[in-house]
Amino acid sequence: MSKLFMFEKPLGMRDTLPFLYKVKKRVRQAMTNEIEQWGYEFIETPTLEYYETVGSASAIADHRLFKLLDQQGHTLVLRPDMTAPIARLAASRLYQNGNPLRLAYHANVFRAQQREGGRPAEFEQIGVECIGDGTVTADAEVIRLMIAALEQTGLQRFTVAVGHIGYVNALFLEILGNEERANVLRRFLYEKNYVGYRNHVKSLPLSSIDQQRLLKLLDLRGDDTVLSSARELVHTEEGINAVEELSALWHALRLFGVADTVKMDMTLVSHMSYYTGILFEVYADGVGFPLGNGGRYDELLEKFSCKAPATGFSIRLDRLIEALQEMDVEENIECIIFSQERFAEAIQLANEKRREGKKVVLQHIAGIRDIDAYSKRYEPITYLLGSNGREE
Amino acid sequence: MSKLFMFEKPLGMRDTLPFLYKVKKRVRQAMTNEIEQWGYEFIETPTLEYYETVGSASAIADHRLFKLLDQQGHTLVLRPDMTAPIARLAASRLYQNGNPLRLAYHANVFRAQQREGGRPAEFEQIGVECIGDGTVTADAEVIRLMIAALEQTGLQRFTVAVGHIGYVNALFLEILGNEERANVLRRFLYEKNYVGYRNHVKSLPLSSIDQQRLLKLLDLRGDDTVLSSARELVHTEEGINAVEELSALWHALRLFGVADTVKMDMTLVSHMSYYTGILFEVYADGVGFPLGNGGRYDELLEKFSCKAPATGFSIRLDRLIEALQEMDVEENIECIIFSQERFAEAIQLANEKRREGKKVVLQHIAGIRDIDAYSKRYEPITYLLGSNGREE
Repeated sequence: MSKLFMFEKPLGMRDTLPFLYKVKKRVRQAMTNEIEQWGYEFIETPTLEYYETVGSASAIADHRLFKLLDQQGHTLVLRPDMTAPIARLAASRLYQNGNPLRLAYHANVFRAQQREGGRPAEFEQIGVECIGDGTVTADAEVIRLMIAALEQTGLQRFTVAVGHIGYVNALFLEILGNEERANVLRRFLYEKNYVGYRNHVKSLPLSSIDQQRLLKLLDLRGDDTVLSSARELVHTEEGINAVEELSALWHALRLFGVADTVKMDMTLVSHMSYYTGILFEVYADGVGFPLGNGGRYDELLEKFSCKAPATGFSIRLDRLIEALQEMDVEENIECIIFSQERFAEAIQLANEKRREGKKVVLQHIAGIRDIDAYSKRYEPITYLLGSNGREE
Repeated sequence: MSKLFMFEKPLGMRDTLPFLYKVKKRVRQAMTNEIEQWGYEFIETPTLEYYETVGSASAIADHRLFKLLDQQGHTLVLRPDMTAPIARLAASRLYQNGNPLRLAYHANVFRAQQREGGRPAEFEQIGVECIGDGTVTADAEVIRLMIAALEQTGLQRFTVAVGHIGYVNALFLEILGNEERANVLRRFLYEKNYVGYRNHVKSLPLSSIDQQRLLKLLDLRGDDTVLSSARELVHTEEGINAVEELSALWHALRLFGVADTVKMDMTLVSHMSYYTGILFEVYADGVGFPLGNGGRYDELLEKFSCKAPATGFSIRLDRLIEALQEMDVEENIECIIFSQERFAEAIQLANEKRREGKKVVLQHIAGIRDIDAYSKRYEPITYLLGSNGREE
């Protein structure tokens, strides 16, 4: 164990300096305003949850959890996502009469990193959960709202890839016959390792027709014409239902006016094991990682003794900011530098300027060590020095 | 170890429901706007810090820290306050040329609770740190800004009690001769146990003159006339300097126009061991606990290899909200309930209303289970049902 420097921060932990703070604030505000306009209500949940309850419901791999023991001997986790805590909160206090409940959050979540590699261990997510509405309209609304919120941030070109976990599961089970084999293929899809997928399919003891069906899956990406090909590939009710849900979703998204931003991707699977139906990821053009994702999770609330369908999305603020064009968030801060004799005058001037909405630092000259360096930091600077001093 | 219910949260952990979220947001915004107007810039630091560095610099008792081990074997803590992390950040990256640096934060901090007793283990603090300015004007500014920020929240009647840790230390050392005895008396003052203080003083093997001096300290609370009595009680340079600093502070606070909100309290000490000079607490009338506190800490940055004077304040958002009068933060959320045939029409109506700044839930009727209960939640509700349905 090496000795720490006083300045060091834990692995993956970051400071947010004033410029980035302002960028985050502006982007967060753009998204949360839009979300509120759609009638979603924001809530907060604790940073720490029990591992036994929310931690294990969260679908984040165990080795990515920050764990600690409380004084009663229970294991606590720093929340790795917000969906499971909101499911807890909805199930225990807010979900009533089986009616739809629209909740939203902006919150930091935590995922332990194995090594320093530029990946943050703490990052902010902004998202919504629409609980209690099992209709495809709810899925469409959540996708539409995500697009609207991203547009409000000024994000220019991005695409939402939409799939259906029920479709992939149905096709794999139909052809492969067991979950174990299905898991191997799902893993290739999750890693977007299509070469590995192809090679693996060719190595499987299947009829060439079934191999072709599995390979055909990889082509099922594009506009809604994909859906008729997808329909031909499956024969079970689950598979057919999945395609029908996606057709209805596409129709709703067209009515919402966002079909151009959406593409079907029947290969989409997720590391979030709680998804049960339609699921999606959002990509900005030219950025290699998803800015966020979402989908339907109709079985999560049952873990909290509450049967309710649900769907939601979540955007990573850090990735969204990376994808955004440069933003001009700097505002002038003025400065009044005064000497003791003119303290009262300086206070009065600062009050006036602040009343006009200006940001003003009030600085006694005796507190400054290097005035040349200091005066570069603010603009404009007013000097109130000496009993009959000049003003600049 | 008892079995947990799925709904349970760790000791002292709280959910923030929509109403409280809105209250917090409004109060936070009022304070942060004011703080920005004074030229302070907001930053964020990680939730987790190393125990060896920031954790041990934080002045929060060890048993109140949430600790965990990282994969390299270092102990991490959930930050128990923001002053130490900001000292780390300022020392490593932001403090330059010995010039004043004005930083601010709103952040959750963590203090482990031994038992469930209504005390939160996670709560939000809003505060500022003015680093690099050793003048009394900086102390006055921080107090003035705290008062201005509290006024912006609508807080009506509150008092800032101001003392000087150097004064108490000088008086005790002068009379008691050693730190051990001084610690016992400081403890009584910190607990505001004045009966215990009196009894203990009377039990000490001191001349009756010295006993009287120690008892007289308890009377040194009130307006600036207290300062001349305080001056008479001490003979050492440290004690005299402390009184002179407080006189200068009082003068500055009068110029700032807030002397009426401030009272001198020479008995003030703090559990924050890093304070070195002027320190203060703020109380709302009729509320038993301080809403916040602050003071000068001229030696903390040295722990991060950076010599710089500093002063700041910190307000607990939960306590401030408790002290505030009830707030009306509820805004109407409208609702459009539609059936499939009129989906397009419903989208258009929702778009129009949202463009007008209204908050609108768009709800497919098929997603509602109990329409009587649901329709009580929103106001007004527009029904777009049936192909030639009526609107209400």
